[in-house]
Amino acid sequence: MRTVTVLGTTGSIGCSTVDLLEQARDQYRVRALVGGKNAAKLAEQARSLKAELAVLADESAYAELKALLAGSGVEVACGRKAVIEAAGLPADWTMAAITGAAGLEPTLAAVKNGNSIALANKEALVCAGDVMLRAVRDAGATLLPVDSEHNAVFQSMADRQADQVEKIILTASGGPFRNASIDVMRAATPAQALKHPTWSMGAKISIDSATMFNKGLEVIEAARIFGLTEDRIDVLVHPQSVVHGMVQYTDGSLIAQMGSADMRIPIAHTLAWPRRMATTSSRLDLAAFGTLEFIAPDEVRFPALRLARQALRAGRAVPAILSAANEIAVEAFLKEQIGFLDIARVVEDTMNALGAPPADTLDAVLHWDAEARRVATRQISSVVA
Amino acid sequence: MRTVTVLGTTGSIGCSTVDLLEQARDQYRVRALVGGKNAAKLAEQARSLKAELAVLADESAYAELKALLAGSGVEVACGRKAVIEAAGLPADWTMAAITGAAGLEPTLAAVKNGNSIALANKEALVCAGDVMLRAVRDAGATLLPVDSEHNAVFQSMADRQADQVEKIILTASGGPFRNASIDVMRAATPAQALKHPTWSMGAKISIDSATMFNKGLEVIEAARIFGLTEDRIDVLVHPQSVVHGMVQYTDGSLIAQMGSADMRIPIAHTLAWPRRMATTSSRLDLAAFGTLEFIAPDEVRFPALRLARQALRAGRAVPAILSAANEIAVEAFLKEQIGFLDIARVVEDTMNALGAPPADTLDAVLHWDAEARRVATRQISSVVA
Repeated sequence: MRTVTVLGTTGSIGCSTVDLLEQARDQYRVRALVGGKNAAKLAEQARSLKAELAVLADESAYAELKALLAGSGVEVACGRKAVIEAAGLPADWTMAAITGAAGLEPTLAAVKNGNSIALANKEALVCAGDVMLRAVRDAGATLLPVDSEHNAVFQSMADRQADQVEKIILTASGGPFRNASIDVMRAATPAQALKHPTWSMGAKISIDSATMFNKGLEVIEAARIFGLTEDRIDVLVHPQSVVHGMVQYTDGSLIAQMGSADMRIPIAHTLAWPRRMATTSSRLDLAAFGTLEFIAPDEVRFPALRLARQALRAGRAVPAILSAANEIAVEAFLKEQIGFLDIARVVEDTMNALGAPPADTLDAVLHWDAEARRVATRQISSVVA
Repeated sequence: MRTVTVLGTTGSIGCSTVDLLEQARDQYRVRALVGGKNAAKLAEQARSLKAELAVLADESAYAELKALLAGSGVEVACGRKAVIEAAGLPADWTMAAITGAAGLEPTLAAVKNGNSIALANKEALVCAGDVMLRAVRDAGATLLPVDSEHNAVFQSMADRQADQVEKIILTASGGPFRNASIDVMRAATPAQALKHPTWSMGAKISIDSATMFNKGLEVIEAARIFGLTEDRIDVLVHPQSVVHGMVQYTDGSLIAQMGSADMRIPIAHTLAWPRRMATTSSRLDLAAFGTLEFIAPDEVRFPALRLARQALRAGRAVPAILSAANEIAVEAFLKEQIGFLDIARVVEDTMNALGAPPADTLDAVLHWDAEARRVATRQISSVVA
């Protein structure tokens, strides 16, 4: 029996992880389930999986969670400190799916165990890449990417011949404005931008998909995970989202991973790695799709890719600055304070304003994250004014 | 330096292999180059690669070959016995690319060395599957498939988790009659049937592609190589011939190998295996293709797939009978003695006439091969009459 911990268990990735653990109850012992605010969902999961420990970040939910788990034998804790402690309990496999900056410390605590970390928190590598990779190296941990694109590349490198990799290719759905004119994009409303063609996701990531900042962040993430320079990471628009990622080898072979649009597929891969588990996820029927398209991305309508490559080449705090400025700009767009094309403009202006300061501690990362938010907010006021 | 031998060196696969060896001269020492009749080509290759030994099957070409290689330091031999002796010289890697029944004995001689055998001779596994697999097992040899589809599946199983494979998928171009009506197919001339849409190949294999007997033989070959029953081997028509083969795993992931239509890509994979070599083969540009299509095959217009599955389930000499009857029927079609749709009819009638006799020695295989040719020829006379 392998021991597992799920950080961010009540979110979308967490729920998919719990679903897989329920499909293989005899193979995993659940050490800790860590959620944010949803006591009812956490209690239900903890009972179902007979978890040793259930933790909520929200301190005020302690009494509710305690009551919900009375008599279950599940230990209960709440608050930020309890989250980090739970993340640091030894486990063979940890799902790191607490999103945003809040996920950084718990993920680092889990990395220190030196075991397998299924990483679903983009910020960990985009903003705190140097810090995270140093911690992984020091602890001898294994990073298993959960993002469907990075997981696909990881699977396509199954024979681990990184020195024989020429380049990797991340696919992008192209989002709702794939074929839109720049004028349509300029006038786009949040409702139009939120209509993602293939995956059903939250607002922030849907907008990131529409601007292709999501793909830009993934290029940065891929560079960290696979140790590649940005010129060896290509992006292809692939509206069907069937091929998730590819690896081009020096002998002319290209290996790709495909699958249905179901996050349980990459999660299952990380959970059973280096083996594979049997799951009930729906199988891909290529004949039913009929046609798969691949198109080079348009960096004029989607400057996010260019900005992400620029941030990656500059390194230091620049990826963190790009990510934070984008978060602020997306919020402002969703509140209809700025237009769709202003998102990239705010990010670029913030990057230009802050330069490339060093970011080799978590504190430095958090400092430049805060600075970028401040500067981006100021830029937005000037756009609005 | 690894030692290598090329059987069938003056053919298409052999020439591609020599091209790759010339790209990596410092890594391989060429033990033997074995050709059929083309003394000039063989001598040129042997000089270029500084081979230890050059052998021609054609005994009458000895004086010519000897003269061509005078002063080169390359040893020269000719005749059937010399071919088999050369195949049996110890080499780390042997390309087995002598086609047809003539390739069986040399391939078996190479297998007995217990090293890596790059297998490009379909008949070895289709007709003499049991004999070949027993020899491979006994010698502890490694079979590396060269056929683009099987090589793709092999590459897609890089992490060797055969017990976690749900099914494999071989792609087929669909040939020139992919969208033709059955009436058009009935009236098809050899010239029409020879027009292969993506690969440039010999007459026999082009007709096999048009009837889809080629894919049927590949289903049989795949069953042998990967140890799968026929219900776990799917075929998908994929007119662009970009995705060569795929593996569907139990966790819902599908791994695929893609590449340009260049046989040097799979050959390079077997040559450098388990590593990968750097080659000058043209890289796949998916954005240039734009669209990849996948269609379920039509077993009504293409009964070859049904017949191959039937032969695979029956086992014993039936695959050898199917293969031999098909060879005879294709010859008759090329001579305009029978119609295009008669090819499958001749094969089916021959299979029905001969039943499923055992075939666990090379002699038995060759006997039933001859019987099938005799019966198929008789069937053709009755069609013609």
